Order: sequence, then C-alpha cells, then structure tokens
Amino acid sequence: MTPTITAFERSPDGGMGLARDTRVRWALEEVGQPYEVRLVSFRAMKEPAHLALHPFGQIPTYEEGGLALFETGAIVIHIAERHAGLLPEDGDARARAIAWMFAALSTVEPPILDLSTARMVEGDRPWAEERLPLVMDRIRVRLGQLSARLGDADWLDGAFSAGDLLMVSVLLRLRSSGLLDEYPNLAAYVARGEARPAYRRAFAAQLAVNAPSG
Amino acid sequence: MTPTITAFERSPDGGMGLARDTRVRWALEEVGQPYEVRLVSFRAMKEPAHLALHPFGQIPTYEEGGLALFETGAIVIHIAERHAGLLPEDGDARARAIAWMFAALSTVEPPILDLSTARMVEGDRPWAEERLPLVMDRIRVRLGQLSARLGDADWLDGAFSAGDLLMVSVLLRLRSSGLLDEYPNLAAYVARGEARPAYRRAFAAQLAVNAPSG
Repeated sequence: MTPTITAFERSPDGGMGLARDTRVRWALEEVGQPYEVRLVSFRAMKEPAHLALHPFGQIPTYEEGGLALFETGAIVIHIAERHAGLLPEDGDARARAIAWMFAALSTVEPPILDLSTARMVEGDRPWAEERLPLVMDRIRVRLGQLSARLGDADWLDGAFSAGDLLMVSVLLRLRSSGLLDEYPNLAAYVARGEARPAYRRAFAAQLAVNAPSG
Repeated sequence: MTPTITAFERSPDGGMGLARDTRVRWALEEVGQPYEVRLVSFRAMKEPAHLALHPFGQIPTYEEGGLALFETGAIVIHIAERHAGLLPEDGDARARAIAWMFAALSTVEPPILDLSTARMVEGDRPWAEERLPLVMDRIRVRLGQLSARLGDADWLDGAFSAGDLLMVSVLLRLRSSGLLDEYPNLAAYVARGEARPAYRRAFAAQLAVNAPSG
C-alpha cells in the first residue's frame, strides 16, 4: 500500500529542504518505498480535518491503510520497522540508533529551533540583539559534545542509520548561521548525508513543490 | 540481568521527581523489572567516563550487559520491547504510542524547558520580566492542542502506554507554574499518572536519594 504524507503547500524556507517532510521523504527514499504527497495550506493545518491527523497542527503526517501517524521520529521508526536499511538488525545496535534519533529531535534540535524563534519571532524585540549570543552559545555546547563524540567517524554509530538521518536533518538548519562551520567534522558529516542519493531525491522532490519559479 | 541506571547524586529539584531518572524508574516499575542505581555528581557527569555513556553529559543512562544507552525515550522503548505493559501489541497502536513519546519529548517539552531557562538562566537579565509572558504563551499553545485532543479520555490513545508515561512526566514540570491548572483535563490526566502504583514507587525511590533530610 502506498503511504501518503503531508507537506507544506508552500514551505516557509522556499525549498531549502528544512521542512520536516524532507526527513520522511528521505527515509522513504532510503528504503525504496514510493509515496504520495498531499499539500496542506497554513490555514488548513489548523482546521479539524488536519488536527484529527496531527493534534499539534503541523506537517508531516503519514497515512497508510487505517494507520494515521504524526511526529517525524515515530514515522521514521515505523518505516524502519517495515523495511531494511534504516535501523540495524542487532538489538543493541538498534537501540543505540534509536537513542540517536531521540538525541537529534529532543536534545540537539530544541536549542537550534530557539535560534529561529529568537530571530524570527522575537527579532524585533528590544532584547533581540543582546540575547542572541546566549542562544548561540547553547547551540555550541551541544555541537561541541556531538563533535567530540563523532570524532573522525563517518556516522554516529557504525553504519548510516535513522539516527544519522535525523541528526543530519537537524544540523542542516544551522547552515545559514555559520555555526556548523565552527565544527569541521560536523560540517563534513552533514555533507556526507546530503551526498546520499536518497537525500538528493528527497531534496529534489520537495524543491519541485517549493522552488520560487515552481 | 539487572540493569543499572544513573541518576543525580543530588537532584536540582530536591526530590520533586522532575529529574529524568524518575521517568526510567517509572517505566521499570510498570513492567516489574528491578534495577540498580549509580549516583553521579555534576562534576562527574562532564568527565570522560560518563561522557562515554552519555555524549551530552546528562542522566539517566542505562546499562545492561554489553548495552549502554542514553536518551530517556530510547531507554523506555528498549524496556517496552523486552516487557509487556508499556506499548500495545497491535502494530498500528504501537506506532501511535511511539508518536506520543516523541510528541512529549520533542513537541511539548521544549517550550516547557524554555520556561526554566527563562527563569533560572536568564532570570537576572534585563528582558526577563517582559519576555516571560511570550514563553508562557508558547506553552499554552501546546497545552491547548493537547487538551483538545485528550478531551475526556483517561489516556492519550486507548490504554495507558509509554506515551502517557512521558507526557505526564513532561507536564509535571509545569505544576509550580500554575499553567497546568488552566487546563483541568490535563491536570486530571497528570493526577491519574501520579496515582499509578508504579509512579508512586518510582517517586519514592528518587525521593529517598534526594529528600532534604536524606
């Protein structure tokens, strides 16, 4: 059965691939699962039909037969359980890969999202300029720890896994800030993720929706 | 094999049960799995021996034979896969429970942690008082959505699951703010979680370490 995901009718990033549907597209491309996409407007995201699928009014969602899922991490685990290629077979290695999925979404991404909030939502507040370095330093704490753990390895724990897929996706948000370039091994890690054919197909698919000329 | 978790030698909350080891204790109590605890000082958490277990220098960690895990969400999934009682047997219901785990840790908890940062870390900054209502309103957005979804149900999706365990744990952080009381069904939901015998045992176990007189 072909799953259907939702994505922004027009992504706020204009096709840079930072919207979370790109993460699910990437996972589906890694395992070779075709999918359909239903585009949702900002207004429709807050209406009852979409809230029934996603209680927090966001994208992506994932529908497959009678199953409706939200939360990118849960969608990626669901895909990984039905297809080889995203989580290791060995139980201990699989548990560690899931740890990196949670690390990406609940330890590394929140301070990175705070930077967007500080710039976009609070950018015109009187404290914006003085507060920004504090927010950036909190990101540096996490990047320094992640950089130390990665070292000169290609991926976080052995072969590429769903943990890397989400961590690379989270770090991509930092490109325009310049922060990533302070940690050359993390910048190279992100570049390795972007070079994967599955990522490139996922990126192209979202760009086809969001390109300025599209 | 008895797993060993780590916890604060002295929790910053003085035994209110908000440190993340309580979540893992609760999961282990729900499934009836005995465990050992190794207490870690703030200094030791940032030293190489602990960073080898937890790259971000936090607690809890989980060790069991040759497996070392970090990230509470991953630890709870690991426990749930080895014991009945935390995730449904049915595949679709299981995927939805995992969605609520991610929702708790990466959608609902981040704005709640921002409130702690605003009060504790930035509390003496010139913008602290004026910025606080913005931070609280971001929490209200999430609580309003969660409250609407929960309605008058006991738990988020059918029977109690690891998704409820983490969501209740996250919401408990709000008790002292008064925000929870603005959503009576969420306050009752949290109280249902706290009333579970497994939660009470977990709470008592962390209190024995952290009570002011302890």
